[in-house]
Amino acid sequence: MAIIMSGVFDGITTGAPIHIMIKNMAAKSRDYDDIKDLFRPSHADYGYHMKYGIRDHRGGGRSSARETACRVAAGAVASALLGPMGVDVYAHVVSVKDIQATVFERDQIEKNPVRCADPEAAARMEELIMAARKDGDSVGGIIEIRAEGVPAGLGEPVYDRLDADLAKALMSINAVKGVEIGAGFAATLHSGSQNNDQMRITDGRPTFQSNNSGGIDGGISNSNTIVARIAVKPTPSILKEQKTINTSMEETSLKVEGRHDPCVLPRAVPVAEAMTLITLADHYLRHRSSRA
Amino acid sequence: MAIIMSGVFDGITTGAPIHIMIKNMAAKSRDYDDIKDLFRPSHADYGYHMKYGIRDHRGGGRSSARETACRVAAGAVASALLGPMGVDVYAHVVSVKDIQATVFERDQIEKNPVRCADPEAAARMEELIMAARKDGDSVGGIIEIRAEGVPAGLGEPVYDRLDADLAKALMSINAVKGVEIGAGFAATLHSGSQNNDQMRITDGRPTFQSNNSGGIDGGISNSNTIVARIAVKPTPSILKEQKTINTSMEETSLKVEGRHDPCVLPRAVPVAEAMTLITLADHYLRHRSSRA
Amino acid sequence: MAIIMSGVFDGITTGAPIHIMIKNMAAKSRDYDDIKDLFRPSHADYGYHMKYGIRDHRGGGRSSARETACRVAAGAVASALLGPMGVDVYAHVVSVKDIQATVFERDQIEKNPVRCADPEAAARMEELIMAARKDGDSVGGIIEIRAEGVPAGLGEPVYDRLDADLAKALMSINAVKGVEIGAGFAATLHSGSQNNDQMRITDGRPTFQSNNSGGIDGGISNSNTIVARIAVKPTPSILKEQKTINTSMEETSLKVEGRHDPCVLPRAVPVAEAMTLITLADHYLRHRSSRA
Amino acid sequence: MAIIMSGVFDGITTGAPIHIMIKNMAAKSRDYDDIKDLFRPSHADYGYHMKYGIRDHRGGGRSSARETACRVAAGAVASALLGPMGVDVYAHVVSVKDIQATVFERDQIEKNPVRCADPEAAARMEELIMAARKDGDSVGGIIEIRAEGVPAGLGEPVYDRLDADLAKALMSINAVKGVEIGAGFAATLHSGSQNNDQMRITDGRPTFQSNNSGGIDGGISNSNTIVARIAVKPTPSILKEQKTINTSMEETSLKVEGRHDPCVLPRAVPVAEAMTLITLADHYLRHRSSRA
Repeated sequence: MAIIMSGVFDGITTGAPIHIMIKNMAAKSRDYDDIKDLFRPSHADYGYHMKYGIRDHRGGGRSSARETACRVAAGAVASALLGPMGVDVYAHVVSVKDIQATVFERDQIEKNPVRCADPEAAARMEELIMAARKDGDSVGGIIEIRAEGVPAGLGEPVYDRLDADLAKALMSINAVKGVEIGAGFAATLHSGSQNNDQMRITDGRPTFQSNNSGGIDGGISNSNTIVARIAVKPTPSILKEQKTINTSMEETSLKVEGRHDPCVLPRAVPVAEAMTLITLADHYLRHRSSRA
Repeated sequence: MAIIMSGVFDGITTGAPIHIMIKNMAAKSRDYDDIKDLFRPSHADYGYHMKYGIRDHRGGGRSSARETACRVAAGAVASALLGPMGVDVYAHVVSVKDIQATVFERDQIEKNPVRCADPEAAARMEELIMAARKDGDSVGGIIEIRAEGVPAGLGEPVYDRLDADLAKALMSINAVKGVEIGAGFAATLHSGSQNNDQMRITDGRPTFQSNNSGGIDGGISNSNTIVARIAVKPTPSILKEQKTINTSMEETSLKVEGRHDPCVLPRAVPVAEAMTLITLADHYLRHRSSRA
Repeated sequence: MAIIMSGVFDGITTGAPIHIMIKNMAAKSRDYDDIKDLFRPSHADYGYHMKYGIRDHRGGGRSSARETACRVAAGAVASALLGPMGVDVYAHVVSVKDIQATVFERDQIEKNPVRCADPEAAARMEELIMAARKDGDSVGGIIEIRAEGVPAGLGEPVYDRLDADLAKALMSINAVKGVEIGAGFAATLHSGSQNNDQMRITDGRPTFQSNNSGGIDGGISNSNTIVARIAVKPTPSILKEQKTINTSMEETSLKVEGRHDPCVLPRAVPVAEAMTLITLADHYLRHRSSRA
Repeated sequence: MAIIMSGVFDGITTGAPIHIMIKNMAAKSRDYDDIKDLFRPSHADYGYHMKYGIRDHRGGGRSSARETACRVAAGAVASALLGPMGVDVYAHVVSVKDIQATVFERDQIEKNPVRCADPEAAARMEELIMAARKDGDSVGGIIEIRAEGVPAGLGEPVYDRLDADLAKALMSINAVKGVEIGAGFAATLHSGSQNNDQMRITDGRPTFQSNNSGGIDGGISNSNTIVARIAVKPTPSILKEQKTINTSMEETSLKVEGRHDPCVLPRAVPVAEAMTLITLADHYLRHRSSRA
């Protein structure tokens, strides 16, 4: 349950900071006692230990994806700002391991547990995830984020380019190992003449004949749909035995227990939307200050 | 020529800001008169026009990759800080269009004009670039950056994670459309048990049996080599005729002239190194403030 | 009651943000209904209304000095960092209206309700405050802050000078209208030869023969005691009738009711200490990052 | 001579950073050789030495008031933004040592070398400064800054209050030891009923019957004239012999030579105006981002 602690009065923001508090009502800290002195492979455990010399092992502490709940709350505030302007941000799962969505039906996204816009692929993704769970293993995949209705002009080159800030925002999400905008890595297989988004005037307004730039050129939005994709690695918490070390720097092994998810992609979809909304809202406010 | 204007006295930094000035000695502003009122497709032109209402068309103004020269200068300062600590940052071209390097010989990187660590692939890449030039077209590719010797502990979760800041720094380079860390997008094809970097003790020190995390877990460096890759799109300036619009919002076409490069990858290698060095230096200084 | 919500585990900070929550257990919002549509003279009401178009009138909302409770909480954290280093920060009331302290006995500060280090003056100050209360009026005065044991070297000229940041921190306290460092405004009555703090070596360490600089020269601490004074205006909430306008921009008058204090100085003493501690802690951490 | 290096094209700002370069055409570095190893009392020398371990002794390096020339240049840019909106910022000397201006005639400010709005007092101030010079000594004084035409609503409580940011900006000027807003320290001698600025409607607009708040309440501008005063200490560079220590931490003495000014107030007037303009411009831009 999210409780608004400050910043809203009579249903309207007052200009004071909006403090939203989400209490973890289902903490089971005891589940984590066994891993207190172990570093779970590819988790934040070792880095936190080396950096801070202390680690709240209960559920991963601050490195837990539970933290992303607050990003979704902040994204809801950003959405309240951008929505009335016509900005529409949504995300969906485009692949789980090697299963790719090939159809895009937006209204399907929330109709399957994978949050995939291709219902047929979604069914196969779900099967794959269940098989991974059964196997004590995990899978990752790719999420696509789209932001429609973003006006041209957002972004502050050269150090706060919109694409750079989006990359930071999305890469900051737990388990994300890659970010691409528009054609992204696939753009490297195009020639310039294929990749350039040529312009026309349609219904009196500038339009683009393609969207390899993903709505951003030179760090500034160009009014085309902003498109980004993120690579989400397979959850590092698996039930299989793994080699690791402990805080005494001795070799050991572990099997992670506790509540874990064989695939975090469906849960990462609203987080990716939220981080995109937050980034756009920040840039919208910065941009507005330059308008007379 | 880079001139140090302030901040260094008797060969040592004084604590005052270091101002380095690089004069453009070869500006040919007249080359750009023809495109004054046109928006070059997939260039920053349209965004700058929509954002600022004015655009310095001479060479692209601030959106020109000429701007990256100052990043390389700043990277040299960061390198003077990190080098003596044993941090070694280098980058190399791993693909140009569909030609991929399959061999890594570090000492080859600076021996070919493509800055590729695979001399045989480099020769084919060079041919491909020459063919693109002849054809009035352009090509892109992928650059890999490695940072060896980075100690564990750099990164400030959750909002200034090291991977997030690296993503921002690298995505801010002109023509970059994607950033991945470690296995990156390929990690989505792994199962968790394949992707996790299991830990051992080697020679008394923690080591990893793989590096799918690319040296960063939970936003903090883990002492493994930091590995990132960036997607560089084909240069949008091509000699082929393209459809576009002008500042009067009329349809027209253009053929870009002036000095242009059919492939910016080799020039982007030192820029990618510099942005990585700057990011690491910032985080090193931040981290040091937390050490008693 | 202050509740630590995050950032501390087993009595030690974890590196995660420390969230301290203080619930207002004695809110009497109804007290403020009468002033809902009025701007109290020399209060934040008019500015908030003009800036935000909405104002939480209950107790002044965010502009209330209640907000300073969180500063005191943050100051306690800063103190936990600086205390063990030998930094000792304390403040005391040096004047209330025209009554000035002429004696300094540190152990007297907490022994009288005015927080004045001169017990005889404190008694007269208390009388004056009681008379103001009886009269439905209010009084202000001056608080001095001292920070002993601050090492030389804190401050980041030219834009984050220690004196500049202290001035900002102290001026941000409700009702503060002036800040001076060392001799402050009185320095303008000195000649340079009187005002300069000449240096000697005492017990092998650099010392100063006076402290007109208040421990800061050129924006950097010089190891002398840091001394600052702040002017606190008389509380604007008074019971006397005053002319004002309302949100309909009509002339009217008001008598403030509700709980109000005829003199906020004693309560501002810990806030001034806290803001000084926070500023010193920030600069200590910044400075430490520059030490090899 | 100030040279605009970037950010302006065809007489209009382009949105790129404006780089203004001012070359010191009259550097006489040799003048400072004698003080290379000495710490001038109440100068930045000792702090810089303790902080950075190195000091550019030639003319004080970065701690020299020469640095303020760039602030004046930046103030000119801020003025170009604020001027057309009707904001009018000016400063004047109100006291030199114990000589106070008692008359305010704005058009007199630039007609005397002291920049004092009281021509009779200006003449006596000038005499006093000449006498100090003859005596090898120096004097300080007080400068008042006024900003007329600032709309209500600027300031971002609670951490970036307009008065707090002004205090920081003004305290960051070399030799400034105190900042007050409105009645400032004198407000502590008022009762609340004397000090409050009561409000009326005049010509259909909100007005104030006094200006003890100096145009800022609760950290937000209230449309009244913003009034601040700064205490400028007597120049620490004097010709009289003074006790000090050297970089070997030995006792010694010095007589400062080189070009020095017995009173920096007239030169500080444009700097104070510039810092006020910069602060107001920043807040104006921040505020504008919150306007739909």
